[in-house]
Amino acid sequence: MAPMRPLLLVLALASLPCAAADDAPPKGRTMQEVLDASQPSDWRRLDPEHTLYLELDSGRVVIELAPAFAPRHVANILTLVRGKYYDGLSINRSHDNFVVQWGDAEAEDPKKARPLGEAAAKLPAEFTRPAQGLAFTRLPDVDGWAPQVGFAAGMPAARDPEAGLAWAAHCYGTVGAGRGGPPDSSNGTELYVVTGQSPRQLDRNITTVGRVVQGMERLSVLPRGTGPLGFYEKPEQRTPIRAIRLAASVPEAEREQIEVMRTDTPTFEALVESRRNRRDDWYLHPAGHIDLCNVPVPVRATTPAKD
Amino acid sequence: MAPMRPLLLVLALASLPCAAADDAPPKGRTMQEVLDASQPSDWRRLDPEHTLYLELDSGRVVIELAPAFAPRHVANILTLVRGKYYDGLSINRSHDNFVVQWGDAEAEDPKKARPLGEAAAKLPAEFTRPAQGLAFTRLPDVDGWAPQVGFAAGMPAARDPEAGLAWAAHCYGTVGAGRGGPPDSSNGTELYVVTGQSPRQLDRNITTVGRVVQGMERLSVLPRGTGPLGFYEKPEQRTPIRAIRLAASVPEAEREQIEVMRTDTPTFEALVESRRNRRDDWYLHPAGHIDLCNVPVPVRATTPAKD
Repeated sequence: MAPMRPLLLVLALASLPCAAADDAPPKGRTMQEVLDASQPSDWRRLDPEHTLYLELDSGRVVIELAPAFAPRHVANILTLVRGKYYDGLSINRSHDNFVVQWGDAEAEDPKKARPLGEAAAKLPAEFTRPAQGLAFTRLPDVDGWAPQVGFAAGMPAARDPEAGLAWAAHCYGTVGAGRGGPPDSSNGTELYVVTGQSPRQLDRNITTVGRVVQGMERLSVLPRGTGPLGFYEKPEQRTPIRAIRLAASVPEAEREQIEVMRTDTPTFEALVESRRNRRDDWYLHPAGHIDLCNVPVPVRATTPAKD
Repeated sequence: MAPMRPLLLVLALASLPCAAADDAPPKGRTMQEVLDASQPSDWRRLDPEHTLYLELDSGRVVIELAPAFAPRHVANILTLVRGKYYDGLSINRSHDNFVVQWGDAEAEDPKKARPLGEAAAKLPAEFTRPAQGLAFTRLPDVDGWAPQVGFAAGMPAARDPEAGLAWAAHCYGTVGAGRGGPPDSSNGTELYVVTGQSPRQLDRNITTVGRVVQGMERLSVLPRGTGPLGFYEKPEQRTPIRAIRLAASVPEAEREQIEVMRTDTPTFEALVESRRNRRDDWYLHPAGHIDLCNVPVPVRATTPAKD
């Protein structure tokens, strides 16, 4: 790591994973300490059958799909990917502090709209799912949007025990299926990614299908569209999509060798605590609270699987 | 406004300011209805003596300073601006989902560091201020980070009545003064802007000096630095700052003719409610809650002042 610049007044120490001072009372670990102490079992590889590679000229964005929350949409997206539906389409919208969105810019023109192939044109809305049967690691922190928040199936999520429902939350990196007015008007041909302040008001109002695990910076920097809602006004402004590929269909040597921290372990609980109450000396006032969408889920490079 | 594309499955209606359907029960207004019904007295012009123009090659970023929260830092920043301290400096850091930051990249080198002129090198920390004497429009919504949240002096803010303290909150667009380890190690020569998910853990740990009122998209798209914490590794990667100017020093004809919605009126209360409980038909499940950092503070163009 490049040397720190101690005399440079930086908003640095707040986010630099540093060890706590040696003489600090043992009142809690820093995130780096938690990471350093983690075991292989605290990490998981992505399922190549549910991992997408969004291939842009600038590089790859890795998306983990969440069939636990949207089985029908995820299946349809996989069908679209197999049929190379998205290849050659474009990112048509970049809306500051909100989302980027891609799909077929010609979808409204029957003469030019890309056929869906074997994918379904119509799917049921999958805005929530039964809480029953969903392993849910709850955060103790209060949340104004839902009775309970936490992590489930790799996604930041929320739960209403009285209603018996759970749903994925709209945090930075959440991927969802764009829809029109009718609840059942999404089918996965339009996808968006949250690139701004968590729009939790969308929870329970739209189908979420997964999250970006790596490569967010390739989306968050996209020039903002000057049209309404951040749509690009001219075709040449859109960002071309070379392809969306299923990791399982990509030769092993071309796959991202990464693993994600599990969210159902004591290590993850310790990591969240290290962010809830910062032990870095820089912090004078640890917050004692963390919002769901401020919880990081670490990703790290790993060596190729030997199995 | 360009025509909508109704057949295009878009995550559009959620954010398009549309009138509610004519036959909808009168259960609350949409944001557009609130805006349309607003009176001139619901809006305010910025104080040119406390408004900065950050001039980049890509255009202007308008910053409203908040002397109510950081009088010493704001005064020092005004001194730096008068001395043209920032002119020709650069944005040295763009950290995905966190901040951009600017200042003197050579500040550590005594031979190259830019002199502060008449500005103070050392200031007291201004992390909080007394709640007394600060007009505070409280939001009824729960917040996990502070006992009370709302708006004060044009800033999203928080308050602890028991402790008798108030502070500005770190939302998208908040501007703060970078510091090192010691609490009193900021002086305004390093400034940052929140470009990602609200880092509320920074509240009460650093001096906030204002907020970006217009032009955030010029900052949020800056390429992410590849060095630690998003610092640029090579000087040529930095974004040049042409100048930071005080609006009052700029000829009237060159000033931004904008006004900001006041945050202490029934109109603003109605606007927040229109976002807390969306009445657009697109929403099946209005949230019934809003986070402080999801509250928009509208800005609009206005005709030049006639006084």
